Parts: sequence; C-alpha cells; structure tokens
Amino acid sequence: MSDHVHVHRFENGLVLLAEPMDWVESAAFTWLLPAGCGHDPADQLGLAGFTCEMVQRGCGPWSSREFVERLDNLGIVRSAGVSLAHTRFGAAMPRARLGDALEVYSQLVLTPHLPAGQVEESRQACIHDIQSLQDAPAQQLMQALRQQHYPEPLGRSSQGTLEGIDIIGHPQLTQFHQSHYHPDGSILAVAGNIEWDELRDHVGSLLDQWQGPADHFPSPAETAGEDLHISHPSSQTHIGIAFDAIPYSHPDYFQLRGAIGVLSDGMSSRLFTEVRENRGLCYAVQASCFSLKDRGSVMAYAGTTSERAQETLDVTLEQLTLLGKGIEPDELERVQARIKSALIMQQESSSSRSGSMTSDWYYLERVHSLEELNKVLDDLTCESINTFLAENPPDNFRIVTLGEQPLEFSHAVS
Amino acid sequence: MSDHVHVHRFENGLVLLAEPMDWVESAAFTWLLPAGCGHDPADQLGLAGFTCEMVQRGCGPWSSREFVERLDNLGIVRSAGVSLAHTRFGAAMPRARLGDALEVYSQLVLTPHLPAGQVEESRQACIHDIQSLQDAPAQQLMQALRQQHYPEPLGRSSQGTLEGIDIIGHPQLTQFHQSHYHPDGSILAVAGNIEWDELRDHVGSLLDQWQGPADHFPSPAETAGEDLHISHPSSQTHIGIAFDAIPYSHPDYFQLRGAIGVLSDGMSSRLFTEVRENRGLCYAVQASCFSLKDRGSVMAYAGTTSERAQETLDVTLEQLTLLGKGIEPDELERVQARIKSALIMQQESSSSRSGSMTSDWYYLERVHSLEELNKVLDDLTCESINTFLAENPPDNFRIVTLGEQPLEFSHAVS
Repeated sequence: MSDHVHVHRFENGLVLLAEPMDWVESAAFTWLLPAGCGHDPADQLGLAGFTCEMVQRGCGPWSSREFVERLDNLGIVRSAGVSLAHTRFGAAMPRARLGDALEVYSQLVLTPHLPAGQVEESRQACIHDIQSLQDAPAQQLMQALRQQHYPEPLGRSSQGTLEGIDIIGHPQLTQFHQSHYHPDGSILAVAGNIEWDELRDHVGSLLDQWQGPADHFPSPAETAGEDLHISHPSSQTHIGIAFDAIPYSHPDYFQLRGAIGVLSDGMSSRLFTEVRENRGLCYAVQASCFSLKDRGSVMAYAGTTSERAQETLDVTLEQLTLLGKGIEPDELERVQARIKSALIMQQESSSSRSGSMTSDWYYLERVHSLEELNKVLDDLTCESINTFLAENPPDNFRIVTLGEQPLEFSHAVS
Repeated sequence: MSDHVHVHRFENGLVLLAEPMDWVESAAFTWLLPAGCGHDPADQLGLAGFTCEMVQRGCGPWSSREFVERLDNLGIVRSAGVSLAHTRFGAAMPRARLGDALEVYSQLVLTPHLPAGQVEESRQACIHDIQSLQDAPAQQLMQALRQQHYPEPLGRSSQGTLEGIDIIGHPQLTQFHQSHYHPDGSILAVAGNIEWDELRDHVGSLLDQWQGPADHFPSPAETAGEDLHISHPSSQTHIGIAFDAIPYSHPDYFQLRGAIGVLSDGMSSRLFTEVRENRGLCYAVQASCFSLKDRGSVMAYAGTTSERAQETLDVTLEQLTLLGKGIEPDELERVQARIKSALIMQQESSSSRSGSMTSDWYYLERVHSLEELNKVLDDLTCESINTFLAENPPDNFRIVTLGEQPLEFSHAVS
C-alpha cells in the first residue's frame, strides 16, 4: 500500500478509488456493482448470476465473439462473480491496456446486448455450475452452512436453484440489468502503474452518462435456519460450524481477527495442531471471519473420514469453546507476524490491492492505509483480545454436516 | 524478470539461483531436492510424500512444535510437495527474514529429527490425503490419466497407495531421507529484495558440509497403460485425454505452447468457445502442456453431466484433431498477447519467479530472460506453428473417464 489512495465520487454516485504502484508494469481493477443475488426474486434464485453470464456475451460495438477476442487481445486476465450484495468484475493487464480495458467493461455495464439467441447456452452454463457442486462436497457444505446460519436472503448462494434458473427468461434478465447495474452503490478500484488525473478523466468520460438510483437492499427475514445433515454417498464426512461474530466494520474487528488467527492461521495454530497434527484426525481444518455489511460470523470447516468425523467435530467444538477462555502472548506474536507478512505480499499484487480497496470501501467507506493497519496490529494485546473474548465467547454454534451418517452434538457444549 | 539471474554451483553440487527484485519488500525461495516419488520402491508407494511429512516435524535445535512456531514467528508463507522427480519446499516472507528462513530449512534438509513417536500421526495425514481424493473426482481422474498414459514410474501420483503407506516404517523413512535429500541434483532459487554476495555466502556457510552423490533416476518401463473407465456414483462425468508431445526442453517447445494456447488459453480459445459457449456442454474444459525431463504430453480435461458426456468427449476429440490442420493469424495474436501479459504478472511475484527459475534450471540448466522469452514469442508465426503441427499432429489419444457409465470412442478419430 502506498499510503496514498485517490478517491473520487462522481455525480451519479459511482466511487472511483486508485492506488498508484509505480514499481509494477501491470494494472488491475475490481468493479463492484450493486447487483448481488440478494436481489434475486424468491422464485428466480440465480437471476443475478445468470445476468452476469449474459452481460459477457457482447456489448457496445462488439458481438459476443468480438468481446472475448477483444479481451484476449488486450492480454486481460479476468474474473467475474456474484455475491450477496454485488456483481463483481475483475481484470488485470499490462498497464498500457488499462484504458482500453475500462472502455470494454464500461460498455459491458452500460450497453450489454443480452442476446436473446444465447439465453439457452447461458442457462446451460448456469445449470452446469449448480450440478458440478455434486462433485464438490466441501463447497456444497459451506453453501448450506451459510444458508442455515443466516436469515433469508443473507445466506444465499449466487448459483441459485435449478427451479429458479429454469423459469428465468429474457425479460427477467433485461429487467435485472436495468434495475441493478447502477452507478450509485458501484465501486471501481484501480491499482498499479497509473496516472490518477488521466484515469479519473477517462472513467468520467466513459461513465458520465450512466444514471440510476441508489441500491435498496431487501430487509432480511427474522429467523434463520436449523442445524442440518446432508446425506451424501462417500466414506468422507464434511463438517461446517458457524457462530455469530462482529463484522469488518466494527471497531473491535481486529480483536476478533487476532483471536481467530490464533485458532487457525498457520501450522502452529490451535486447530491445525490439535486436530490434524496431534490427533491425525482430518486432512483439512480451518476457521475464518466472514463479513456481511451489518453482521459477521466465524465459519469453520473440517473434512475427514466418516469413522473420525465424530471425534473431529468434538475436538473442533472444544477448541472453539476453549478460545473463549483467552489466548497466550506467544500465540499473539505469531499471528501478528503472519498478518504483517501477508500485508507485505498483498502490497505487491495490483489485483489483490484493487480487491482489498473495494472491500474496505464497501464496509468502511474509506481505505485502510498500511501504516494504519500496522498500528492496529501492533496495538493488539493479549489483554485486549482476552477482554473481547470474555465478552464475546464463541457459542450458539450452527452445525451442518455432509456425509453418509449424521453426527451427534449437544448445543450445551461448554 | 530483471534479466540478471545469479548462478552459483557449490562444490557439493547444489545449484543456487537468485534474481534481485529491488522494488519488492518480500523474498521467496523454492528448493527442489532430488527426492521425488519416482524413487518410491514399488511396494512402498507414497514413501517420498510420507518422508516430506516427517521432515517437517522437528530439526536441528527445534522440536516439532518449536519448528512450526519458528516458521510462523518469521511470518513465512510456506508450501511443500512431492513430484515425480523432486521434493519441493517453498517459502515467502518479509525480506528481513530470508536469512533466518534459509537457516530453518537447511536444518530441515540436513538434520530432521524424523521422530519415531510421530510416525503414526504422519501416516494418518498421508492416509487422509489419499482418502480425500474420493471427494475430488477431477483430481482423481487426472492422476489416473497420468498413470495410464506414462510407463511406470513416470505417471505416479506422489500420494502413493494405502497399501504402500501401510507398510512404511521408521527405518524406510530414515533411509529415504539419507539416500535422496542430497545436494547434487538440488536447486535452490531465491527471488526478491536480496543482496547476491551476502546470500551466496550465507547459503554456503549453512550447506557446505552437506554431502551426497548425484541422483540416479530409475529407468521407466517400456509399456504404458490402457484407456480406462473409473466407476463413480455421481450424475457428473469427468473426462481426461492425453497425447504425447515434446517437452519443455525441446527447441520447438514454444511452437507447441502457442498451438495449445489457441486451443485453450482464454475465453476466445477454441475449446472454451466450441465446447462451453456455443454448445453449453460442460462447466469446465481445458488443455495444457505437461513436461517431464525427457518427454512431454498434452493433457485435456472436461467435466460435465453424464447426459452430455458423450457429446463433450466427441467435440473435444474433434477439436484436438482439428488443431493438427493449423491455426489462424488472429488466434496467434491473441495467444501472444495473453502469454506476454502473464509474463508481466509473474515478474511481479517473488514466489512465482523463484518457482519458474527452478523449473527452467531443471529442464534447461539455465534460466530464460524476459527479453529472450519475448523474442521467442514475437518470432512465432502461423507458418512456424502450422509446420510444427503438420509434422506433429495431435493423435494416439489416451482416454480416461470417471462417472457412472463408460463412454464410447474410436481411436481412429481423424
């Protein structure tokens, strides 16, 4: 992080962020649009994802074929995806191509062709994505865990359902684009070898005609789901555990982050040591913080053989509960070293920086500087984290398992 | 790439490579040891991987626990793995920690404790890794494809077999370490913000007592395997196709790489366009070059629903065969742009550079400069690639499928 992030809010509401990294030859951007799957109508789950598929099939002067050829000609490494709150487009490229890349993506957002003749191919791609989950049980489990842990629509998966994808037609796709690909609520973050004035003027000239009202995110339901077992023919069992925690925007967030780091960051972390190294119980175990705009959680995962699944669940729950009793100074030191090291690595990637800037802005309406993050990390103490944990001990676990047999657990773990 | 790679071969045979990147704050190294799973005895498949697990459980002055704490304290992002020819350790860190990190890894290589009391936990970890494949069918398929395509031991998976892991004891682990963790055949590549003289002297002082003879890689068998169908309870089918091609060390390698790029690099590539976009046949399809020291191949993968599997296989084989007829100028231009862009991104990551240097040295005994690679790419023409393809058309496909039902295919595809 250069500790110098430019910010400009255009009249139409679009926020442009930029961080010059003059030592790299690349540039990258991440563009969040307020078009997440939280807006999918209840009977059309998957609409945001389907629309995201369709807008990439031609725009402005380019046919579907010309569009992908144009991006490949520019040497763009691209990504696209949908989360609860956003449709996201990411692109990394040689710095000389940034202006052209922004032009193509502006057309994608403003004037996609949404060709009626390609709706069926696009639908097939969406259906394949849902069906491929059958062979990705860990991913399937974590989707189910979010769904059970959060009230509708907060736990949704962007892939939607086969039923939802089936009834979506061309009018719904066009309507979704018109209603949600809006500037107010959009965040475009650019990092790399760039000139700020030139960038701001270029984005302004591309997008100053773009209009649309602010995003109104649907209110969540009052109740969430229950624990769940998903039957799956395999000798492996996948275990997911969630509990409520504070979100990224909370002033105490880094107290939580430090504590979860003690639990799961690195090979000396508690989960890795107790569950994998000391007991050889499973091939994968981890926990991490998961944030929505106004609420957060911690989500843990373990994958193991069915014979060892019960013990793996028991030991993992025990470790989660034990965390509430506090951490030790040497554990904190290691987590501080690991997070600082990760910040240094992240600083060296333009893609990674552009992604972090959009997250920061979405949650905080500002971008953390490296100096600020280092100070927050240095200020963490065992006392501050242990005070936080005493007031917010991990509890009320939501548990979802996937495998041949359900497991036993009591919610009175202590 | 700074176009300035330092090379030093120590008397014991260890090759040290270093590329200064003075604009980054990190340093990274990749260390290849001539201890690949090609050396596993036929009844102890998995021995190299099991040994790699065990050497990370304490060395020199550090117990198993102290070892992982030390690495986490240094903020090291680490990786370890075994391939046919090598055991590989990777580490990335803040540049000030490089010297300490090299000290820890030197102890790991020279004086691992290989604690007898942790053999069973280590064995469990190896068993879990094998068993977890059951829920990773795409990975399972590609392992089987390599196994069927290459004569023993060239197609081996480093995970080994449950039978092999079961009979390995402490004496075999100690023996494997003594016989294969040798300097002659080892390549240590460092990239990042480093001083060459200081680095060379430090590595020299850490490793000058290290001795051991050169690697003698076992001769492969004469015959390879057959086509194969693996029965798997799922509505998805996974398809793997391999054919012989030239290795990375061949002077014409970039003719092949360019041709396979036309087939599979980017969303405008032939496979993505024909199989996924135009026909909506599958959720994933790709082909890539795969190199061993003295031979190469192209390996293709497609994942789809069982109903569409036959058509997916037919269209993929058709595209592979059609590639032999040649490529068009606009296809080549896009591949050139994409590969050059990827080189720029790679240049910005110290981890990625250290990995590439070890590969280059292993295959070529030298390291490509960026200038040289750009020239090779610029020199590619449709004529040069089409001449290559006419002389080396994709054929003699080895096909492995995984799903509920076998598929039909004829090897007389033309």
